[in-house]
Parts: sequence; structure tokens; C-alpha cells
Amino acid sequence: MNAGAAERLAERLGEWKADALLISAQANIRYLTGFTGSNGLLAVAPSGMTLFTDPRYAIQAAKQAPCAVRVVRGPLAKAAAGLVRRKRWRRVGFEAARIFFTDYTALRDALPRGVTLMPLAPVVEPLRMVKTEEEIARIRRSVMTNSLALDAALPAIRPGVTELDIAAELEYQQRRHGAEKAAFETIVAAGPRSALPHAEPGTQPVIANHLLLIDMGACQEGYASDMTRVFAIGQPAARLRDMHKAVHEAQWAATEAVRPGVTAGYIDGQARRVMKAHGLDRVFVHSTGHGLGLEIHEAPRLGAKDQTKLEAGMVVTIEPGAYVEGLGGVRIEDTVLVTATGHETLTPTSKEFISL
Amino acid sequence: MNAGAAERLAERLGEWKADALLISAQANIRYLTGFTGSNGLLAVAPSGMTLFTDPRYAIQAAKQAPCAVRVVRGPLAKAAAGLVRRKRWRRVGFEAARIFFTDYTALRDALPRGVTLMPLAPVVEPLRMVKTEEEIARIRRSVMTNSLALDAALPAIRPGVTELDIAAELEYQQRRHGAEKAAFETIVAAGPRSALPHAEPGTQPVIANHLLLIDMGACQEGYASDMTRVFAIGQPAARLRDMHKAVHEAQWAATEAVRPGVTAGYIDGQARRVMKAHGLDRVFVHSTGHGLGLEIHEAPRLGAKDQTKLEAGMVVTIEPGAYVEGLGGVRIEDTVLVTATGHETLTPTSKEFISL
Repeated sequence: MNAGAAERLAERLGEWKADALLISAQANIRYLTGFTGSNGLLAVAPSGMTLFTDPRYAIQAAKQAPCAVRVVRGPLAKAAAGLVRRKRWRRVGFEAARIFFTDYTALRDALPRGVTLMPLAPVVEPLRMVKTEEEIARIRRSVMTNSLALDAALPAIRPGVTELDIAAELEYQQRRHGAEKAAFETIVAAGPRSALPHAEPGTQPVIANHLLLIDMGACQEGYASDMTRVFAIGQPAARLRDMHKAVHEAQWAATEAVRPGVTAGYIDGQARRVMKAHGLDRVFVHSTGHGLGLEIHEAPRLGAKDQTKLEAGMVVTIEPGAYVEGLGGVRIEDTVLVTATGHETLTPTSKEFISL
Repeated sequence: MNAGAAERLAERLGEWKADALLISAQANIRYLTGFTGSNGLLAVAPSGMTLFTDPRYAIQAAKQAPCAVRVVRGPLAKAAAGLVRRKRWRRVGFEAARIFFTDYTALRDALPRGVTLMPLAPVVEPLRMVKTEEEIARIRRSVMTNSLALDAALPAIRPGVTELDIAAELEYQQRRHGAEKAAFETIVAAGPRSALPHAEPGTQPVIANHLLLIDMGACQEGYASDMTRVFAIGQPAARLRDMHKAVHEAQWAATEAVRPGVTAGYIDGQARRVMKAHGLDRVFVHSTGHGLGLEIHEAPRLGAKDQTKLEAGMVVTIEPGAYVEGLGGVRIEDTVLVTATGHETLTPTSKEFISL
């Protein structure tokens, strides 16, 4: 809960010429109120916030949210429209990127005539980019849990063990070390399957003399961590070793460039420059990283076109990769904090091409 | 992948006077094409299907989807609009409940003049309600895994162990028994916290002489199972025992009513009638159940207002509950198949008020 954030949002209403905002993204509602339920709609106005939820969350919402709570049966949009009517709000902003088309039309149809619904670009997400001390502390703990979980699971990794077995062990260890859950579906990709950047773990066993890619993140106290490592199982082919070396170098170069004032796109460019020098730019098929916090993917996006200037307190991933179909893929990823003077790599796990 | 389903959908285009459909819900794309990635947009037309995805999923999409695949950088909506232009489609339906407002506007703005975008009520979800033999077989395996996982985790449950520890153990056991992952966030609620219908597991330890509620589901071969059980830890208060008995009776009555031809609302009414007889109707704050399959919540909804007639091949949960703040809550839930002559409770786990 970030009471200051809600106030800053209410202060900006004038900028948008809005009487109130309707917040529909659950992570944004959590950020503004502390409510962790999966069904909510939040009205933000200068007079305060009102949280709408369903009876399943009545007790929980009353405990968590320091604002008015309305427990309603049926569509939350309809109840919110009732509030708009009673408060005589005329111009109401909504989160265009975080509301389904039908929820928008339900809201529109329930509102009194003369009320203008204004689609807004993300309004809470920019506030969430720069983390508070408390948020950074949570991310640190999440990162530490994630790395301890990987360490604890390593003894279980050997040829013949399946990707699914390893994913199960990793997530079990995340929770044993304090996570609520995995922040996303753990990726474990053995051998040539590592060339699928978003491989779902399957019944493929670990293959001797090949790669094993693990991409894992913890969710602890609501906050995500994110890490990717690639291990050698025995002696992989020389070309795979070279790929690992190149990606490691790109990851280092991009991380070194992280400091306040540079753009997200510049960081991406640093990784891409190194990959190009190794002839791997065409197989580096995603952006260099992303912000993270209450969600695993947050702003900024460390891609060529993102002109967001980094600020102290932002937390981003740095994760270049190279993927060659039929051969294999390498990605190395840390969670990195932007500090006042540069950066701090939060992830303590070795990035060497360790042989298991 | 259900090739028949895609054909049935294409045949219905005339009904909607549509030249093509754009499918944006990932579960619907999986159902129609077999593609399991997290970013896709599918065009369905009489001439065939075209799947748009990003470079991360290029290799995977080509392997999984038996249709044209277009790998695009940037917004999928823009690429889909290009296809609409080339094919000279004039009327294009879209999934109004499964597309974000901004994705809708991106699509609208990228389309040539004169093309009509038609918001459609769910079109794939009704097809998904009645499962194929293969889907039922997968759900059976998912249910079995889920029950075996609970059995395997029971020895770890004793006073002092935290909700989070138990959730970790349950999900680990799900995967050990063949699940890809949990179908939803496992609920473990100790003592009075069982009164929160959607409690997130926390650091609360199991409390002696109270309840422990576990709501868990496996996702196996893409298909969900769902089960809730409440255990006695030692000797809970008489009122909690009475609540368990009442909910058990309501769960039995609702399950017995399941057969082809009756409405979803009728099933809900059967559970509610029993709860009322026990004076618990006001604390039964959710509907009696829901369909499940590729998603954990699918149509139909077993609530008062849903007039869907049950058909053989549907799979639903039956899960009445009672929640008393400060005291505790009870919910009992099975996964149930509608058969030609009635129903089959797939969940094999005992529903007795077992003391651990």
C-alpha cells in the first residue's frame, strides 16, 4: 500500500480534466490500496478511494484496504456507475490498456447520460516504475530467495531427470525459502529446446553434453524476482560455449551501462552492439529486459524504442539471449537496481558456464 | 487441437454475417490450433486460419499449429489488420470479452476504412463446454494427479506447519504425479482464515482443534482439475462440525441433481435449498460451481441465473460452502462429469470430516 501514490494520482486528476479515475488492473489496485484479491474495481477521486469487490473478498478487503469498501453481487462496473451518479462526476478516466472491451461497454452503458468516459494511457504504472525503499527491500528478499532456491535444486539436476521434475523442485525450493509462489511459469529447457525462448517444461529429460536453460522468478511479499542461467551438462559443443561467452559479454556490457539518466533504449543498444560483434544480433529475438515489481513485466521495457530515462529506484532485468533452432539457446538474466550513482546487480548467482 | 471445432466456427460465420473472426483469448487459440504460447492472435475464415505471434514463439508455433503462422515484430493487431486488407474482408468479428480496450482500438485504427468490427459474445467458449473423449481423458488424469498429490502431502500436515509450507508441498506433489503446474493458486487456510473463501496461503500455522481448508487443482496436458477438502485438526468446535455436515449434504444433493437436460441454475438451487434448511444460505456467498477444462473457470456457471442446460460431456465443479467471519469456513468440491444418464464424480478423494 502506497498512500502517497494514491494522493499523487488524485492530484493529477486536474491534468486530465477528470473528476475521478476507475482503476481496473489488479496490480494497480494492490499498489494503491493493499488489496490482494483477484476481483476489484477502484474509484479514485479527490474525496478518497472506493474499492468495489465481490462477497468472496468482503472480509479480506475490509482488512486490507484503508478506504471505503463496497461489496457487491454482480458486475462491479454497474456498482461503480452508481457511485459516479451519486457523486455527480462528469468526466471519468479509465485504464484503457487494462480493461476488457466488454467491461468498458458495461461501464459505458451503466453510466448516466452526459458522463464522459476517458481512455487514459497508463497512469499508475509510471508511479510504480520507481520503487520505494520498502519495495526495494521486498525485491531484494525475493531475489535472494530465488537464488537460494536454484542453489538448493542444483543437486537434483543430472542427465535423465525431466524438465518438469526440475521445475517442480525449483518452485518447491522457492517456497521453502520464503516465496508465496513462482512469479511466472518456471522455464526449464534441455538441449535444443533451449532455443525456444519461452519453452514450457515438458517430459524432455536433461541431455548429456548439451545445455540446460533455467529461467525462474520468485514472488515474495507480492514482489517478483527474475533470473536466467544456462548450465553445461558435461561437455557441450564448442559453438554453444561460444554463444554462452558472447551472451555473458553482452549481459555485462548492458549492465555496466545502467545508471540514472540513460534511456532504456540505450541499454538495449549496448547488449545488441556486443551481440552484433559476435554475429549473433539476428538470433537475439527479444528486448534486453523489463522492469519488475508487483508484476513480472512492468515498465520500462529495455527495447530499442523505449526512451524512458532510468532513475534511481527502478528495478529492471538485463537478459540478452541467442537462439539457434535445432542447436540451442542461451540467455543470462539478472535483476538489477538503478542506484543514485549507477547500478547494483541484486542477483548473487554466478554467471559462469558451470558444468553440472 | 480440435480441427472440428475450427471448422464448426468457420461454418457459423454466415450466422454472424462475418467474413472472418479474430480470436484473442489464448485458451481459445489453443483449443483451435494447439498453440500453447502466451502471445497470439488468430484469424479464422472459411479459407483457413492464420496465427500471428512474436519471434519468441516462432519455432514453437510452426510445430504446434496446423495452419498459416505469421511471426511479427510489434503489435499483432496491426499485422492482422494487414491480412484483413489483403483478403478484402469487410466484416470481422472479435471476442469482445477477451480483448483489452486498447487492443480493440489498435485494431480499429489499423483497419482499412469500410471494414466493420463486430463485438461478438463468446463464440469458442460454447464449443468448449462439451468436452471430447480426449479432453475428458485428460481431465480424468488431471483429477487423479490432484487427488494423489493431496494424499501424498497429508503426512506433512500437523499443527505448527504453515499454510505456505503445505501449499508448497501440495504443488510439488502435483508435479511429481504428472501435472505441468497448479491450475490456480493453491488455497490453504488454517483456522478462522478458512472463512476467507479465496484466502492466499500465508505464514499462519495449522491450528490445533480447528479446521484446515485446502482448495487445489492440477493442470495436466493443459487441462484443469479442482477439489476442495476441509480437515479437522484434532477436535474442532461442534458448530464447525455441524457446518461441515451441512455443506457435505448440500454438495451431495447438488451432485445427485446433475444430469443432461437440467439447468445450471437448478443445480445451484439444490445446493442452496439444503444450505437454507441448515440456516446457512446467507453465508453461502458464491455460486455452486463452474465448468472447467483448458481454463479453471469456464462456462457454464452453476449459479441461480445461468439457464444453460447440462449436456453429456460437460465437466463442472460442485462446491457449496459456508463462511462465518471469526469462526471459520467449510467448502467441499468435486470435479464432476455429466454423463448420458446422469453424472460421474471424477474426484476419488473421501469427503468425510477426516481428523489429521
